[in-house]
Amino acid sequence: MKRGIVLEYINGGVCAAKGFKAYGLHCGIRKNQNKKDLMMIVADNDCVSAAVYTQNLVCGAPITVTKKHLANGIARAVICNSGIANTCSADGIEKAEAMCSLAAAAAGCSAEDVIVASTGVIGVPVPLEPIKAAMDELKAGLSYDGGTSAAEAIMTTDTVSKQCAVRFKIGENICTVGGMCKGSGMINPNMATMLCFLSTDVNIDASSLDAALHEAVKNTFNMVYIDGDTSTNDMAEIMASGLAGNDKITAKSAGYGEFLAALKAVLLELAKMMAKDGEGATKLIECRVSGAPDEESARKISRSVVSSSLVKTAMFGADANWGRVMCALGYCGAKVDINKVKINFISDAGSINVCQNGAGVDFDEDIAKQILLRDEIIIDIKLYQGEADAVAYGCDLTYDYVKINGDYRS
Amino acid sequence: MKRGIVLEYINGGVCAAKGFKAYGLHCGIRKNQNKKDLMMIVADNDCVSAAVYTQNLVCGAPITVTKKHLANGIARAVICNSGIANTCSADGIEKAEAMCSLAAAAAGCSAEDVIVASTGVIGVPVPLEPIKAAMDELKAGLSYDGGTSAAEAIMTTDTVSKQCAVRFKIGENICTVGGMCKGSGMINPNMATMLCFLSTDVNIDASSLDAALHEAVKNTFNMVYIDGDTSTNDMAEIMASGLAGNDKITAKSAGYGEFLAALKAVLLELAKMMAKDGEGATKLIECRVSGAPDEESARKISRSVVSSSLVKTAMFGADANWGRVMCALGYCGAKVDINKVKINFISDAGSINVCQNGAGVDFDEDIAKQILLRDEIIIDIKLYQGEADAVAYGCDLTYDYVKINGDYRS
Repeated sequence: MKRGIVLEYINGGVCAAKGFKAYGLHCGIRKNQNKKDLMMIVADNDCVSAAVYTQNLVCGAPITVTKKHLANGIARAVICNSGIANTCSADGIEKAEAMCSLAAAAAGCSAEDVIVASTGVIGVPVPLEPIKAAMDELKAGLSYDGGTSAAEAIMTTDTVSKQCAVRFKIGENICTVGGMCKGSGMINPNMATMLCFLSTDVNIDASSLDAALHEAVKNTFNMVYIDGDTSTNDMAEIMASGLAGNDKITAKSAGYGEFLAALKAVLLELAKMMAKDGEGATKLIECRVSGAPDEESARKISRSVVSSSLVKTAMFGADANWGRVMCALGYCGAKVDINKVKINFISDAGSINVCQNGAGVDFDEDIAKQILLRDEIIIDIKLYQGEADAVAYGCDLTYDYVKINGDYRS
Repeated sequence: MKRGIVLEYINGGVCAAKGFKAYGLHCGIRKNQNKKDLMMIVADNDCVSAAVYTQNLVCGAPITVTKKHLANGIARAVICNSGIANTCSADGIEKAEAMCSLAAAAAGCSAEDVIVASTGVIGVPVPLEPIKAAMDELKAGLSYDGGTSAAEAIMTTDTVSKQCAVRFKIGENICTVGGMCKGSGMINPNMATMLCFLSTDVNIDASSLDAALHEAVKNTFNMVYIDGDTSTNDMAEIMASGLAGNDKITAKSAGYGEFLAALKAVLLELAKMMAKDGEGATKLIECRVSGAPDEESARKISRSVVSSSLVKTAMFGADANWGRVMCALGYCGAKVDINKVKINFISDAGSINVCQNGAGVDFDEDIAKQILLRDEIIIDIKLYQGEADAVAYGCDLTYDYVKINGDYRS
């Protein structure tokens, strides 16, 4: 957090900021009637809007349509289904456009001002009928505290819904930024690495909003690694209603720093929730690298460590096999002197040094085990070769990851 | 296989070629008395020799020592232990040198002519005492049919030992190339991706041997992906005794093509054995990409597909989730037109088309299941965008991978 900026974490998510209603329900795209599969977010007024998208060459039809609709930086509503990704199917674009038309009718806006997203199985056509049939109920359900039902409706293999909101001040104006996201497999940058829908009531210009979103994503969502698969449908978007009444933020104005700090805080919380709820995960793994010669090296190393299947399985087994950490550091491509490396494992049960000057040190395996049995583990790597640092977030690799993904479609 | 070259697969491994003895035994580095953990290969005469090494910045002490010893392109013997990698431990170099001295005394050569390798846990000091104590027995056991015991002694989490040998002719001279390798986690190029010890009786100059090994590794070991972790200790080496009596091969001489074809055949067999025996694997996955605009794109795509955790778990579950194949194709960085992609799943139970022109086609899930339940699966991707092709080898991701790696050290 930037010094002098006070951030207050509050309850709620995408409806925490002024001017946003949401609702989520089960419309029937999924067989399981207890699983919501459709949601909308509707703003009271046209919003300045920005988004970041998957870098996957194979990208879902909703991504293509949303890019087009956001070209003017204005949005009024979001519609999103889970269960089917609307990707790699012949009439995907028409269906995504049709979803926008349905949402526009419910929101009372133009289809061009609707953001559309889908998440789920690739290659299966998304059925429009259940969506059409549910629109009246969806519209009727929209409310200023509907964020939770909406967050539930975008879950796929997530085990918990993920929301976060932060309140802060710009001058005398109380502002809020909040949102929801879903993970939890296919999480790997580069770029927006899942679905994330954000809202804020700050008054801000389009280019500043875009710049802030890109900046905030860099050290949050783009540092989360679950399984190395970059999804076809990932997107993070934000709508700004302006209802907080602050003087309009531009990149050079005073309020930009406050807004960016708040946005980063929300994204970091969501990123960590996502990592911790990675498919089958039992624990959050945070790899902190400091003393790197440059930021890119620090990022490479931290990402490589949290991505390593061997590190991830060792963490699952609470096994202090730090050699695998060294190994992942060694193959990541960062040019560092491995003979200076220091590694500690840290959790709320304590901290233990396992490697010094690139070589193993005697350590108490029982203490290491106690530390690694906790559900939030920090792998702390000090390089002593500069001032740069980075943090990456991931999770352990477990039997349940295999179980969840061995037959996802059934 | 190059047209006009006849290759005969024969029994045996590193002792199949003329002039090589080997033996493996349990010396006590491992607790399990039934698991061999030390082996030697000894040539009857000084051999021309070449090797490829791990690209990991953190490399084992044996790699450093072997690089030095092979600088002159001559070797006489190999010593290798399993159980401990002799990597990231303060006195690793001295211990690797000491292992060479012990092997040299047994082989009757200089320590500088010994290739040393270790595989196992990183960061634990390798004990010299059990090695010293076993040298008399190891020397006494060396024989021209000791390849199998040696191949068993280098196994770590491998479930089967891996050997292959091929006989071929250069002019009227009968030549042989053979070898052994071990996998089976931490398998990911770039480069020699495991331990592999090869021998041949061809008469060949050092630079041609080196060139042939690098060429043969490129489309075999370097296309095998188990878990994305590039090990610290991996190496493939070959010794050539010259006892086949052929005219000395140089890169431009007639015999080079024959030798290269035979070497590639041995490495391809070993690579497939390694992929199929990946940690916890139940099946071999081969991704064939054809019609690519260039070779690099073909290689990227095939590697990305066999490396994807989501593809690997789907294959474990015999789930024809081809969308994950498209997804892995999309994020690998190859610039291809995804709208032309055709995907088939193939096994000895048949072939089924699941994607055409980048979109899903109706297919019979039951037939797909029957095809994917077999233990050798081909994911066939046709791009229709050029002439280049590539094949990568991998395995499924299973509960047992997690089990094996959750507590490897205990």
